[in-house]
Amino acid sequence: MYYAVIMAGGSGTRLWPLSRQRRPKQALKLIGQRTMFQYAVDRIAPIFPPERILVVTRGEHAALLMEQVPELLPENFIVEPEGRGTAPAIGLAAIHLHGKDAAALMAVLTADHYITDAEGFRQVLVIAAQVAEAGHLVTLGIKPTSPSTGFGYIHHGVDLGTIDGLPTFQVERFVEKPDFETATQMMESGDYSWNSGMFIWRVDRILAEFERQLPEFYNQLTEVAATLRQPAYEATLKRVWPKVTKQTIDYGVMEGAADVAVIPVSIGWTDVGSWGSLLTLLPADRDGNILIGPHIGINTRDTLVFGDKRLIATIGVQGLVIIDTEDALLVCPKEQEQEVRAMVDQLKQAGLSQWL
Amino acid sequence: MYYAVIMAGGSGTRLWPLSRQRRPKQALKLIGQRTMFQYAVDRIAPIFPPERILVVTRGEHAALLMEQVPELLPENFIVEPEGRGTAPAIGLAAIHLHGKDAAALMAVLTADHYITDAEGFRQVLVIAAQVAEAGHLVTLGIKPTSPSTGFGYIHHGVDLGTIDGLPTFQVERFVEKPDFETATQMMESGDYSWNSGMFIWRVDRILAEFERQLPEFYNQLTEVAATLRQPAYEATLKRVWPKVTKQTIDYGVMEGAADVAVIPVSIGWTDVGSWGSLLTLLPADRDGNILIGPHIGINTRDTLVFGDKRLIATIGVQGLVIIDTEDALLVCPKEQEQEVRAMVDQLKQAGLSQWL
Repeated sequence: MYYAVIMAGGSGTRLWPLSRQRRPKQALKLIGQRTMFQYAVDRIAPIFPPERILVVTRGEHAALLMEQVPELLPENFIVEPEGRGTAPAIGLAAIHLHGKDAAALMAVLTADHYITDAEGFRQVLVIAAQVAEAGHLVTLGIKPTSPSTGFGYIHHGVDLGTIDGLPTFQVERFVEKPDFETATQMMESGDYSWNSGMFIWRVDRILAEFERQLPEFYNQLTEVAATLRQPAYEATLKRVWPKVTKQTIDYGVMEGAADVAVIPVSIGWTDVGSWGSLLTLLPADRDGNILIGPHIGINTRDTLVFGDKRLIATIGVQGLVIIDTEDALLVCPKEQEQEVRAMVDQLKQAGLSQWL
Repeated sequence: MYYAVIMAGGSGTRLWPLSRQRRPKQALKLIGQRTMFQYAVDRIAPIFPPERILVVTRGEHAALLMEQVPELLPENFIVEPEGRGTAPAIGLAAIHLHGKDAAALMAVLTADHYITDAEGFRQVLVIAAQVAEAGHLVTLGIKPTSPSTGFGYIHHGVDLGTIDGLPTFQVERFVEKPDFETATQMMESGDYSWNSGMFIWRVDRILAEFERQLPEFYNQLTEVAATLRQPAYEATLKRVWPKVTKQTIDYGVMEGAADVAVIPVSIGWTDVGSWGSLLTLLPADRDGNILIGPHIGINTRDTLVFGDKRLIATIGVQGLVIIDTEDALLVCPKEQEQEVRAMVDQLKQAGLSQWL
């Protein structure tokens, strides 16, 4: 059977002060009336019934996410004691799935991306399942719409054929986040996709790759798997997990894996990683402003005002990001939004946990 | 006897969103732990007992101000039904004083200025009383510390002598707010003071000037004065006041008055008229920031952060004014702070009275 595994373990530091330790990015209404996690479920609900949707998350977020989508089964929430990177998170989901169904097909999906063409996305998932069924580890590539330096790229190799108009390529190479010039060349060549972090594969295939490439982690996984659906499971996981080496699926598995395929797609995909990404995603008014919540402005341009707690008045500001919450306010030019992470680190170092 | 009349009828539009219709500038804690009105009383309390301090204010603000300085006598609050400018406000106070004591000496003082040298200020008030006793209409001039284009100037004329080292001059001329070049020349000449809006005179002298220069208003005043301490007083005031022509004391009386004297003083006087004035008044940190309330910053310079309701985080901002209140937030570069008034007008026009 075909299962969806939604990765919902992140915290979304760069969306502070809206995202917090107890209110992670995926639980926020950043776009319209649904949270990122609700959108992630909504868009696959037509092809995955609730019992075939799994969620990997952290203990402190599980209850919040369960509340947001009550149709999902509580036992389908796979809770990590602590985050160890995407490879362990996926490995943990894989042993759960393998325990249910050794022939399972597994779509690893994300909760922090926004996809405007949900119908197109579902078609891609169905086609990708066919490619994965044949044994490929499939990664969804996003056809670049700009020479972004914020994503990894995937170099397309041998053409593996086309299903329903969607070509599949062998992956030639994963490319780390490039500089602007390289990004421009890659985009213009047409031979590269953005690495979306979404994957489709047979659960036996990915477990075999873990065994071959990350044998130590595979042994740890096996130890946990031996206690699945038993009272000892939680204690075992809590004991093993802190010893697991942090690892991403890209570097830990995909780069060295055999039979990796990429399906480049155009589905209106956006990584909602930072406040700046909302400026590209939400519709701006004729002054280039995106104004969420009560606002009054004079000479205000290209500015994101995000807050519904009070009236926000701006005079003579340009390219500013203003994020207002009940107990914290951020004011930052959009070109310095990458500093938000450093600010959160400062709060941590200063022990100001009430605002984390 | 010598009386102080504190003018506390303004609203302080340029200090929005902290100043509001129901919470005017003089009732705010802009500097330290006391409100502007409390400071105005504090600094004269050593020389004026409470029964000789009168306050002119508007009906909707009287209760708030009484609460702030409970030592003052409720009957010493002179309430204008509506603001008609400084000349009518002073005229109304004058008939009240004249009713108490026809030989009263009257110091017209302000609640929206900050004075660092309170002791020096009190000495000036005592000396000015001697000059006023002799029949002069005394205006306190502030020795310019910058070529400000935001104040009116007073041209010093004939030297009238010196008391305790403080010279008094006849006023040659009142000068409207000048351009920068003129302001520079005036400042460098040493023959000009800023017009502080503070005056000391005998109540019979100022009433005589009203009679001579503003006869229509004087008749209106006489009508009100006839009902002083009678049940008909309030009804008379309410009936007469809307018909009173708006007029400032400077243009309506001082420019045409006889025997006007100026005492130029250096008492650490600042007009707390706008957010920018706080930037010159409050001590800045080594990055030029003035930070009131919890703040965390990265690359933040020459910025005023005023708020104690939540954490305010700033990244990469310079020369910004950020004013945070329970229900409204202002973000504005300091050089555009004069637009705050226009913003408040927009709120009025839009009928958004909850934020006025």
